[in-house]
Amino acid sequence: MEARPIKWWGWGWEDKRSHLESRPALLRLFQERLRVDLSGTRPAVSIERIALAPSVLSPDALAEMRQIVGDENVVVRDMDRMSHAGGKGYKDLIRARSGHFERVPDAVVFPRDEASVRRLLGFAMRQRYAIVPFGGGTSVVGGVTPSDESDVTITLDLGQMDRVLDLDGDSGRVTAEAGIRGPALEAALRERGLTLGHFPQSWEFSTLGGWIATRAAGSLSNRYGRIDDLVLGVRLVSPVRTLDVRPLPNESHGPDLRELILGSEGTLGVITQATLRVHPRPPVRRFASRLFRSFADGVAALRRMARERALPDMAYLSDEEETQFAAAGAGRKLADASLLLMEFEGTAAHVAYGLRVSAKACAGISRNAGARPASRWYAERFEFPYLRDSLLDHGILVDTVETAVAWSNLARVYEAGRKALLDALRRDGSEGLVLCHISHAYPDGASLYYTFFAPQRVGREIEQWEEVKAAVTHAFLDAGGALSHHHGIGADHAPYLRRVIGEDGVVVLRALKRELDPNGIMNPGKLITGAP
Amino acid sequence: MEARPIKWWGWGWEDKRSHLESRPALLRLFQERLRVDLSGTRPAVSIERIALAPSVLSPDALAEMRQIVGDENVVVRDMDRMSHAGGKGYKDLIRARSGHFERVPDAVVFPRDEASVRRLLGFAMRQRYAIVPFGGGTSVVGGVTPSDESDVTITLDLGQMDRVLDLDGDSGRVTAEAGIRGPALEAALRERGLTLGHFPQSWEFSTLGGWIATRAAGSLSNRYGRIDDLVLGVRLVSPVRTLDVRPLPNESHGPDLRELILGSEGTLGVITQATLRVHPRPPVRRFASRLFRSFADGVAALRRMARERALPDMAYLSDEEETQFAAAGAGRKLADASLLLMEFEGTAAHVAYGLRVSAKACAGISRNAGARPASRWYAERFEFPYLRDSLLDHGILVDTVETAVAWSNLARVYEAGRKALLDALRRDGSEGLVLCHISHAYPDGASLYYTFFAPQRVGREIEQWEEVKAAVTHAFLDAGGALSHHHGIGADHAPYLRRVIGEDGVVVLRALKRELDPNGIMNPGKLITGAP
Repeated sequence: MEARPIKWWGWGWEDKRSHLESRPALLRLFQERLRVDLSGTRPAVSIERIALAPSVLSPDALAEMRQIVGDENVVVRDMDRMSHAGGKGYKDLIRARSGHFERVPDAVVFPRDEASVRRLLGFAMRQRYAIVPFGGGTSVVGGVTPSDESDVTITLDLGQMDRVLDLDGDSGRVTAEAGIRGPALEAALRERGLTLGHFPQSWEFSTLGGWIATRAAGSLSNRYGRIDDLVLGVRLVSPVRTLDVRPLPNESHGPDLRELILGSEGTLGVITQATLRVHPRPPVRRFASRLFRSFADGVAALRRMARERALPDMAYLSDEEETQFAAAGAGRKLADASLLLMEFEGTAAHVAYGLRVSAKACAGISRNAGARPASRWYAERFEFPYLRDSLLDHGILVDTVETAVAWSNLARVYEAGRKALLDALRRDGSEGLVLCHISHAYPDGASLYYTFFAPQRVGREIEQWEEVKAAVTHAFLDAGGALSHHHGIGADHAPYLRRVIGEDGVVVLRALKRELDPNGIMNPGKLITGAP
Repeated sequence: MEARPIKWWGWGWEDKRSHLESRPALLRLFQERLRVDLSGTRPAVSIERIALAPSVLSPDALAEMRQIVGDENVVVRDMDRMSHAGGKGYKDLIRARSGHFERVPDAVVFPRDEASVRRLLGFAMRQRYAIVPFGGGTSVVGGVTPSDESDVTITLDLGQMDRVLDLDGDSGRVTAEAGIRGPALEAALRERGLTLGHFPQSWEFSTLGGWIATRAAGSLSNRYGRIDDLVLGVRLVSPVRTLDVRPLPNESHGPDLRELILGSEGTLGVITQATLRVHPRPPVRRFASRLFRSFADGVAALRRMARERALPDMAYLSDEEETQFAAAGAGRKLADASLLLMEFEGTAAHVAYGLRVSAKACAGISRNAGARPASRWYAERFEFPYLRDSLLDHGILVDTVETAVAWSNLARVYEAGRKALLDALRRDGSEGLVLCHISHAYPDGASLYYTFFAPQRVGREIEQWEEVKAAVTHAFLDAGGALSHHHGIGADHAPYLRRVIGEDGVVVLRALKRELDPNGIMNPGKLITGAP
């Protein structure tokens, strides 16, 4: 189905790699800090050595689905089942690299329109097959991994529902099918001088439906908002109902059904299309960077700009560890500093204003580091995840976690997260390495995004990760942070949801699910777990 | 309960009136345009002449409620029952002025804390008494009017739950009880150099809980957002459950329960408290006004600013009729013009930028009308509703309706709304008068807010209004406008909700209501109507 194949065992395009060896300063830093020998590698197992359990679907069941979507759109090839066996979370990658998949879908189905989706869900409901809606497959929280709760799993890949249906340039809105990916949508908009302005790190692969299902946020969310702010209308097809939220600028007509579909993570139905706010392409784009003496100073400046509603269109503040790490990646040394990367885009007047206001907010407690660090980060922002595969080749545990917190509680949550990670990562004389940045700021608080590294426990990679994940998640919640800022719940965060929304909140979500998905076939094991 | 009494038969403070006679140019304009004789008046009936049906509550029931909230907090006096018999919608006022109330509550209860609310709801659920949560009583869509669906109605006035519970200046958040009114909340914030920035026209009387329950929007929503954007955390107590949405800057943890409480209009439970984003008080405030040759030119300028995300902090664009009307109100003549009022507030740099950018967007198609029209409107913005009582005294039907629409469809909906209103208002040689303005703009569209006038059909005031309301509502929906932009659904818009969210949307709301309010006691007849 792909013109350019995507890795089933790692990030991104099959033909694109990023080797740690190409960044010797970074390699040295890892060796020093993690106290590991990085000379050897342990690549992913070759595909010939993987034996999958056969699909349990009967010929009759396959024939019925083929009748709905067309013969060529129901596939049971091992390669397709493996590439749809999970997302890009740590556990997904460890399983794929070792070839030991716990579960793979029994078939991958590519519907071509909403009517087929509706018929497929009806069929699956009668058969009690689990349905996993699948967009770009970039979930890092186990959001598209088949669940043990069902004997049969059909993964619904929306990749063929990728049409732009309508473009209203005067109002600035586009309507597109849920399977469209970032680049295709931006290309269609660019022709009309428009942009969506939604650029999560997964942008090249993730889809409109996936963004909505997970409440994604992109690097320019300060300017354009999260996907939550960009979605005006949306359609969701459940096994028994169709919710159609009309696109209007703002309404006051009761509880917002749009906000039930946002974040639904495939557990209520399949998002088939949406109408989004789009914006004039910025005629001017400028970058700026500032070096603070400490992360705390950088946070203070960011907070000041956020409180005055004068945030840069992009603001990315690294703590001291991440600043040092980023410098090493660029072949430089930089200690005891906190780097703020900024981007401004829009009219010349807006950009000039943004540059002036931010320079003033940062004055006195930072020095100008020029445009280059920010422009370089911006140019390379989709490249970083490729490096993860090389780190895994070298036996390094690498993952990210994120939270959000009020400004007044940010230092506490920041330290609590760091401490929990370092405590959980430390072993056998290795300290672990924990980086953190703020990439999304709001008037009342900000996100905290951690990247962490440790030598893997060979043969017990998943148990090691589970311990780290549990430790840092409890630390976030205990200190008053969010369970997730933009990655979603999936399977990995599901056990913690009750702590966040309360038993009565879970009861309400269950009531909603019962109404839309009475047989519980939609993405079981995600978001809401346990008995219905 | 009130230090300064509020009118039970009209708008605002009992001791404050605004007479049409004090604005002779306006009086002349009404006489000319509506072809009515305004020399006589027909004031509201005097309270001595009103006989209410007695409360049907038994002494035992009253005793039980008194035990929960204290003796003095359960009242059955006629005056209290009348002042809680409705909001400030046209039908409410017509009934109150004539003394012919269809329904009044059987008791008004003033809980002092969340625990009492919970106990009261439990008691009411067992007795199957209807509960109407009541904030400022300023609903204009029948949102607090007792319903025929229940034999007994208890109105829950939140006026005593008006404490500020927490103020976090560093993050910019305040937590307060739901019954607090605009001025009390702003006073508490002002002491700390903060503002909520939420100023609906009802601000002096309406409450935090009411704003949330109806998805209110204030005149500075361009800068600070609607109440939807300001609420971070909120608590809702239903007869059987408590939803507690924690205040965090942003989260990705599934469907947003906050967005189920927003707009719930008392039908799911009682909002008891909320945490809101608050902002530094603006050090600088400046006004500007522009006169366009036509409403269409003004819309084009507003659209340009909205698309470039460079809207003034307040923007209020009147169509030609409203511009003429406003000029007459100020004792001046002005025809064939469309007036844009703007306000800018914040840092000096922000205000200077806003003035510059807006002047550029308006250049060529408008002329500068100075600061005065905007500053004058701003100073008088809470006064206008008082004039309505004087118009009613003079036998003039006066009401407002509002919608929202995408820019590309705005001219069509504007004309459709105008035509429907004029057609429905015209009779006996009188043409009716329809004014319209845009007071809330978004990147993709704007609200349209109509004020309309006609001579009343004496003795058939409500039937006349019902015809007008139905005509304009169908016109909005047929043309693609919203059912309501910020007034809510209440009883008046409830029959149309199905057209907007679909049968499946209604089914989902019902499922939600069943879970939170199994006996259906919460504000019956509002939002969702008909069988459960």
